Amino acid sequence: MTTGLPQPITSSALEGVGEVTIYEVGPRDGLQNEKAVVPTEVKAEFVRRLVAAGLRTVETTSFVSPRWVPQLADAGELLTDLGDLGRGRTRPVLVPNEKGLDRALEHGVGAVAIFGSATESFAQRNLGRSLAESVQMFAPVVRRSLDADLWVRAYVSMCFGDPWEGPVPVTQVADACESLMDLGCHQLSLGDTIGTGTAGHVEALLSELDRRGIGVERIGVHFHDTYGQALANTLTALRAGVRVVDASTGGLGGCPYAKSATGNLATEDLLWALRGLGIETGVDLEALVETSVWMADQLGRPAPSRVVRALSGTS
Amino acid sequence: MTTGLPQPITSSALEGVGEVTIYEVGPRDGLQNEKAVVPTEVKAEFVRRLVAAGLRTVETTSFVSPRWVPQLADAGELLTDLGDLGRGRTRPVLVPNEKGLDRALEHGVGAVAIFGSATESFAQRNLGRSLAESVQMFAPVVRRSLDADLWVRAYVSMCFGDPWEGPVPVTQVADACESLMDLGCHQLSLGDTIGTGTAGHVEALLSELDRRGIGVERIGVHFHDTYGQALANTLTALRAGVRVVDASTGGLGGCPYAKSATGNLATEDLLWALRGLGIETGVDLEALVETSVWMADQLGRPAPSRVVRALSGTS
Repeated sequence: MTTGLPQPITSSALEGVGEVTIYEVGPRDGLQNEKAVVPTEVKAEFVRRLVAAGLRTVETTSFVSPRWVPQLADAGELLTDLGDLGRGRTRPVLVPNEKGLDRALEHGVGAVAIFGSATESFAQRNLGRSLAESVQMFAPVVRRSLDADLWVRAYVSMCFGDPWEGPVPVTQVADACESLMDLGCHQLSLGDTIGTGTAGHVEALLSELDRRGIGVERIGVHFHDTYGQALANTLTALRAGVRVVDASTGGLGGCPYAKSATGNLATEDLLWALRGLGIETGVDLEALVETSVWMADQLGRPAPSRVVRALSGTS
Repeated sequence: MTTGLPQPITSSALEGVGEVTIYEVGPRDGLQNEKAVVPTEVKAEFVRRLVAAGLRTVETTSFVSPRWVPQLADAGELLTDLGDLGRGRTRPVLVPNEKGLDRALEHGVGAVAIFGSATESFAQRNLGRSLAESVQMFAPVVRRSLDADLWVRAYVSMCFGDPWEGPVPVTQVADACESLMDLGCHQLSLGDTIGTGTAGHVEALLSELDRRGIGVERIGVHFHDTYGQALANTLTALRAGVRVVDASTGGLGGCPYAKSATGNLATEDLLWALRGLGIETGVDLEALVETSVWMADQLGRPAPSRVVRALSGTS
């Protein structure tokens, strides 16, 4: 039995979507949320395979304190191992603060991502300061990054729902986005960190951002599948003009067997939809599935991605 | 921590979708594909809970041969147990052939569903005859059902991909749909049995059916999540005018831990999207989640539904 790949048929709602950039977050967001600590050489091999499969933008690691994220304590060693493959404007690394930026600059990175919040509750809990204080903390990080000619992305967490505050008003999210873009960031990534967002909410937020002059060309979307909405929300964002989508190969970081599943959209599940719609990404789906099977073996558990499970016969 | 329910915000693409009918298939399609054989009284309680939660259309069971589907061998006992709750035009039962119809009529059902195919390969393997012969077999089933004033639905399997034939041309699917509708059926259910369909393909099939005079008011959609596309495809169908969506409470029949996962769209995950979009269904999501937690306990494994896992804290 063979199902082959989906038959490419354009949707009337997505006509004219020539190309979509997949912003791969597996090595950073994925591995950061896995219980297992993966050896540096396995991480490097993972990144090499992702790039070989055609993924053009890969966030490789995070220069966060090893006390907070022991999974990525080897950020420096990984970049040394990767050499030129880990540099340039399409290999961002996450930097939580100036100290992280210092380490990243020492390793010659060409792009960084900062990690902001749309809500006070999450800013207090994740960053230990108010929203306003967090923007103050990011200001020198972004300024120094721009001075060093780096590409800068700003993640915005809790853009739809917040575990302490419930649904987050789009005006509040847009305020947070504006503050970060005013620092000079090149791209925003709108994060549905707890996965509660739905299609109309996605449109409403994009529309509010557009009204404030933050157009879709500067926006990426980052959906989690905790409530099963990630792909539907992604297609909604594409319909609204967004062309950058965050995804995690294999669905890493979204283990279906763990209560704490963050539920990253699996790159393969996104690719299945895009190939079916005839939308170009330049990525080899089969190579990615092979990579996820290999990585699942390293992690000792099946990949959460449905496409990986279906195509590889793992369960 | 509480996430609450999603904030209702209409999508511009789904404006005017006043109400959607969820066609609940858990007791039949779901339990038929579960390994465990559930006691009749548990099935009856399941149906009672689904109806109490506000699900208006519930397919209760199948009068298929117990040799083929031992899980539903108690179809008659279940209907006896349910009494009036199992009768009427919103409690269909599946009947594979005239023998099944005879048994269903003995139990006073008010609605039946037949199970056709869009491909020769599946007709041969599932029905043991050609497509043309299968339509001949269904003809007296539908005629006698209409004579008895029953409501009749026709499932069409393999409407997008077929495990032996690959992608199925929309003209071929439309031919099969026409043959079944020509028998006099009231409603078609377009089944993506192996889950490979994508959004543009859904639109193309609905458009071809419309061209042949089978309008969206006579169509239900039945998507499987094997490749993660079920909800995105469902929203695409709603955008095209479809107002009947098949779903299985808890995601029953789509066990994520089994290789043979059929991956039914979970009713709760669909409801999350519809509630977020402000679309009315009349269903109490919390009551459904409670029911799925209870049923998971009966089956001895967690519910595949992502919403159930997220809201109940099960993993």
